[in-house]
Amino acid sequence: MADRILIGHGSGGKLMHQLLRNLISPLTGIEELLDSAVLDINTCKIAFTTDSYVVSPLFFPGGDIGTLAVNGTVNDLSVVGAEPLFLSLGLILEEGFELKHLERILMSIKSSAEAAGIKVVTGDTKVVNKGKGDGIFINTSGIGIIKGEVELTPKNVRPGDRVIVTGPIGNHGVAVMAERNSLKFDPPLYSDTRALNDLVREILKAGKAVHVMRDPTRGGLATTLKEIAEEASVCIEIEETRIPIMPQVRGACEILGLDPLFVANEGIIVAFVEEDMAESLLETIRAHPKGKEAEMIGIVRASPEGMVLLNTEMGGTRMIEMLSGEQLPRIC
Amino acid sequence: MADRILIGHGSGGKLMHQLLRNLISPLTGIEELLDSAVLDINTCKIAFTTDSYVVSPLFFPGGDIGTLAVNGTVNDLSVVGAEPLFLSLGLILEEGFELKHLERILMSIKSSAEAAGIKVVTGDTKVVNKGKGDGIFINTSGIGIIKGEVELTPKNVRPGDRVIVTGPIGNHGVAVMAERNSLKFDPPLYSDTRALNDLVREILKAGKAVHVMRDPTRGGLATTLKEIAEEASVCIEIEETRIPIMPQVRGACEILGLDPLFVANEGIIVAFVEEDMAESLLETIRAHPKGKEAEMIGIVRASPEGMVLLNTEMGGTRMIEMLSGEQLPRIC
Repeated sequence: MADRILIGHGSGGKLMHQLLRNLISPLTGIEELLDSAVLDINTCKIAFTTDSYVVSPLFFPGGDIGTLAVNGTVNDLSVVGAEPLFLSLGLILEEGFELKHLERILMSIKSSAEAAGIKVVTGDTKVVNKGKGDGIFINTSGIGIIKGEVELTPKNVRPGDRVIVTGPIGNHGVAVMAERNSLKFDPPLYSDTRALNDLVREILKAGKAVHVMRDPTRGGLATTLKEIAEEASVCIEIEETRIPIMPQVRGACEILGLDPLFVANEGIIVAFVEEDMAESLLETIRAHPKGKEAEMIGIVRASPEGMVLLNTEMGGTRMIEMLSGEQLPRIC
Repeated sequence: MADRILIGHGSGGKLMHQLLRNLISPLTGIEELLDSAVLDINTCKIAFTTDSYVVSPLFFPGGDIGTLAVNGTVNDLSVVGAEPLFLSLGLILEEGFELKHLERILMSIKSSAEAAGIKVVTGDTKVVNKGKGDGIFINTSGIGIIKGEVELTPKNVRPGDRVIVTGPIGNHGVAVMAERNSLKFDPPLYSDTRALNDLVREILKAGKAVHVMRDPTRGGLATTLKEIAEEASVCIEIEETRIPIMPQVRGACEILGLDPLFVANEGIIVAFVEEDMAESLLETIRAHPKGKEAEMIGIVRASPEGMVLLNTEMGGTRMIEMLSGEQLPRIC
């Protein structure tokens, strides 16, 4: 292990998992990799999550740091089966940051929270000296309620389960990367940042047939699949031709030397579903405005445990690992 | 209003209140000045709070950014009458930050959380480029449970109420300031950072006689009293000679040109209590290890509304306002 923090420690990939496993988890007792903690308070079952947002640039096609900060936390609550209720808002502002930018970001927070039906209930504002921050960092923590007997965990995943992704991958990461490098697309490409609690509500109608869900943000779809394969001790086999990718994303990734499988998403879900319910659930998802481009991309096998295998367009098979190093720093 | 963020916007004083009132509250719907939001989830009444910690230097006599991050949030939950249960931990690390410092801070978090009986249940780690942060910023959000019919709000405050402060003021701010300026004290001076949920438990045994509590952090005791005077539409009259201040703090404040009334605290509470219960509550507080130096420092009057009056040692009366500008930046 390095003796200093590297940019790659924030990637969501291998280095970050190492840091979590070797330092943060043992010292704090936080369990790894959960989008939200699921907690019992008296008779209530709640979900609790936190995320800091350090995206650069602050504004990008399709959203800004404010929309991300609301939607990201709403989605972390949603994928564990919680109905998002309350949000906290922690602002770390850099001296000299323009108030008009702060206002624009707060307006995004307001409209995103209203759209998702979550209420901002508590906040905190700190200011650091010029040169000791980067305009604005935002932390949001969220509380949601889990109704009924929903239990979504990788432990539920079984051989035979189907893997559904609810929309095209890579849009968020490529949109931010393009903004950072002044690239333009025709037709334009937007971040997919959006709240998915409404889509999740539809998915959960399939009940216990839904085994686990994740929103594949930092580290992309590949890292999320690898996490689940390891946690569930299964093999996940996916078909490259089935993975929805927009042409602009594919093109940009080719030019920039990125693999869309490792690019961050902010508006899609990957769900593991019982075989016999998979087709009907796919139809349900496609009937929702946020799931029109959903695809069934793979299947769970018993072995080799902990592996993700990609059957490529060319007919070969590739082993998928977690993102190593940092492909796209400060993407969220 | 300025068009850019000033260091004073983070002071806890006037500028911050303006920012909250004019921009953050109207756009997000966050109510001002609450240490924690009090929320109903089904039949559960919970408290929810968030704070980011940007203290500089990271390590100071009596604590570090990790102890602050746990204790500060525990105390914000405690003063609304909640029993702290769960903590989230959001780390924003700067590229190049030494892992040995991170480890030391995480160990402080672990021991502080254990001491307070709160559990770290969820976390997030982001990394920003070198020069875009300042080593480490920490956000903690906390959830606590409110049992029974506890309701602590400035609206309860009545003329005749007594004002109790549970310990000497200014220790945290002066300890950090001294560390920043390489000042030494003999005997040494330590930050008062500590969890107060055990002391609050004792105070709450006085039941509805306790009208409101606050922990006077940024902006100091003066700013907290002014907030309560305004929110409760009462006058608070305090006696300078009764306010506990350690000799080192008094001396350092004289040298540095600071007013201890405006210096941050991290381990004391100011409580407003019904007149006829005040003496016995003071005894209860003094019987607790964290309240030995408690004092009854003042009384609530009906008017002039919104005012804090300090009867000085010299026999005069001084009007106390909120901290204006920034006395001690990045104190927590």
